[in-house]
Amino acid sequence: MSEITRVPAGLYGVAVSETGISRSASDGSLVFRGYGIKDLFEKASFEECAFLILEGHLPTKGELDDFTSNLRAHWPLPTNVYQIIKAMPRDSHPMDVVRTAMSGLGANEHSLSPKEQQYSLVAKMPALVANCYRIVRGMEVMEPEEDMNFAWNLLYMLTGKRPDAFDAWAFERELILYLEHDLNASTFTVRVVASTLADVYAACTAGAAALKGPLHGGANEAAMQMLLEIGSPEKAAAYLQESLSKGRKVMGFGHRVYKKVDPRAQLSKGMLKTLLEHRHADDKLYRLADALEQAMWQAKRIPANLDFYAAPIFYTLSLPIETYTPIFAASRVTGWVAHYNEQLAENKLFRPDSIYTGPNDLSYVPIEKR
Amino acid sequence: MSEITRVPAGLYGVAVSETGISRSASDGSLVFRGYGIKDLFEKASFEECAFLILEGHLPTKGELDDFTSNLRAHWPLPTNVYQIIKAMPRDSHPMDVVRTAMSGLGANEHSLSPKEQQYSLVAKMPALVANCYRIVRGMEVMEPEEDMNFAWNLLYMLTGKRPDAFDAWAFERELILYLEHDLNASTFTVRVVASTLADVYAACTAGAAALKGPLHGGANEAAMQMLLEIGSPEKAAAYLQESLSKGRKVMGFGHRVYKKVDPRAQLSKGMLKTLLEHRHADDKLYRLADALEQAMWQAKRIPANLDFYAAPIFYTLSLPIETYTPIFAASRVTGWVAHYNEQLAENKLFRPDSIYTGPNDLSYVPIEKR
Repeated sequence: MSEITRVPAGLYGVAVSETGISRSASDGSLVFRGYGIKDLFEKASFEECAFLILEGHLPTKGELDDFTSNLRAHWPLPTNVYQIIKAMPRDSHPMDVVRTAMSGLGANEHSLSPKEQQYSLVAKMPALVANCYRIVRGMEVMEPEEDMNFAWNLLYMLTGKRPDAFDAWAFERELILYLEHDLNASTFTVRVVASTLADVYAACTAGAAALKGPLHGGANEAAMQMLLEIGSPEKAAAYLQESLSKGRKVMGFGHRVYKKVDPRAQLSKGMLKTLLEHRHADDKLYRLADALEQAMWQAKRIPANLDFYAAPIFYTLSLPIETYTPIFAASRVTGWVAHYNEQLAENKLFRPDSIYTGPNDLSYVPIEKR
Repeated sequence: MSEITRVPAGLYGVAVSETGISRSASDGSLVFRGYGIKDLFEKASFEECAFLILEGHLPTKGELDDFTSNLRAHWPLPTNVYQIIKAMPRDSHPMDVVRTAMSGLGANEHSLSPKEQQYSLVAKMPALVANCYRIVRGMEVMEPEEDMNFAWNLLYMLTGKRPDAFDAWAFERELILYLEHDLNASTFTVRVVASTLADVYAACTAGAAALKGPLHGGANEAAMQMLLEIGSPEKAAAYLQESLSKGRKVMGFGHRVYKKVDPRAQLSKGMLKTLLEHRHADDKLYRLADALEQAMWQAKRIPANLDFYAAPIFYTLSLPIETYTPIFAASRVTGWVAHYNEQLAENKLFRPDSIYTGPNDLSYVPIEKR
């Protein structure tokens, strides 16, 4: 028998592939294709960043125009995807609906080229995510507006109201942060499925399946529920103490990579403050989150993660809490597609080994003698 | 920064977990929970083997009765799953339909206990797989017969005819062979998704996504198409030579684990012979497969795998070729569920590392200056 290498559970610290798409590091840095996340967050559009993730470089004006009109051409959902969404039970988990709709979409598009399929999937995510929520909750279907961008349309269709430019801009910043994050569980799932040469819909459906798990997606929703439960900044420290003493999980903290600071959390924290100021709103939610973050750092030296500060931004933008993970999916599909392509460029089927720990040499005994 | 271990692409030779469910080895052995595959193939029922895979031991009479009636109670599909299947395009790939139906099923069953969910999913696969094929191809819905077993019902609903006992028994043997096979790509996908604490439907939907890939599922269908194309035993050697000289892939050969013999292929080969003899049918298909197998072994020392001999058995049983991968899925769901449970018993989120090979230190340049 050939040599078997044992590696830590969860593949922690195990490099399973090379990637040129993004790099997160324990020093609190995150780059997309070489660009620091702060630079992109402050200056770029979602469409520019999506192009960067997919194509490997920032687009020229001509490339961006082509990319944008290509996405727009693929915005509408096919009729049968609406029928699938309508067939979902009214009390469905939103990620079950999104995953099923993504899966069903794939059956429509096998005549497209692989590149068109990818653009179609990325482009359809706003209408898909928004209408998965709307239809299952008994609201009317909404269609994207043709001359508005990805972020504006997603916010528009989810809330049912035309957002103002500032809100759409703030939301777009958060979508940029969710775009891509190297080999998290969903992206790794996408690469494993891609390695079988399954199509991009199959691979991203599997990514959406992974995102349903509370240890991966779902943390932004849980963080918001927790902030609402705490209710005010003054109660944050006591809530934390009680949680720690009872062994209750505090949502939105800790990250596999970032041990001191999640750069996306810090950018979102600033955005939350800016957003509340712009609205001349009470900054209670900001002070509450800040108080909990500080108490957690003092008690456990665990930093807040992206979900912890994206959640109150989404909440301030009147987004329904149950749509936070689908929003994550809408943005992350772009990262998944980039990893899908990267996997195929130098593919080897994922087929790991395992250590067998079960019994051996048992013999079948007829049932009447057991 | 902590140490990063680099491992071979595709995790070849890398043990990512322990397992007590099955062990395949390069010497051509395969055990399920300690029982050799030949023993189970010759003596056990599908239901006994499914119980063994799921629960870790062969059932007593009482356990088997409970298990069987539990499966029967969960046989029917909910109405909305039929609606989802009906919403799929008529030219859908069968695995797209199966994956979408499995995904949609999950939204119905969140009120069941995790154990009931697992039984439900396993039990529903015959009706789900058969009706995904039937509905999309414009045939009427068929329901399982209550007092018949998993294999009989799957064969019955796929062919639309009540199979005789011998055919159902032969088909059941093949389903046993497809039940489980340690960490292949789909099962590994299931474990990665399980590690996020997503539910069993999400995890198995992702498994079905991986099974769509031609490097994983699909080989049985491709092998059958190839055998039909060759047409007669006399042409096998020439077909092989031409394929090898043109670099055309010969389907149904080679396996990551089995380098000399795939025990499942050999059992299936015997079954194909027995099945044709029982029917007093021409054994041309057997002789053709045998001739190709021998030519391939002489030329390349690559053994036939399970798919190569399961395909002509399915063909002889009048099963539509496009349903071979869904049949694989119907059986393998049991293995996926067992791995789902094993993953959760000692869970650690899969979060591998990667080696970043992209650029660094780039700065955003406004679009008009690019």
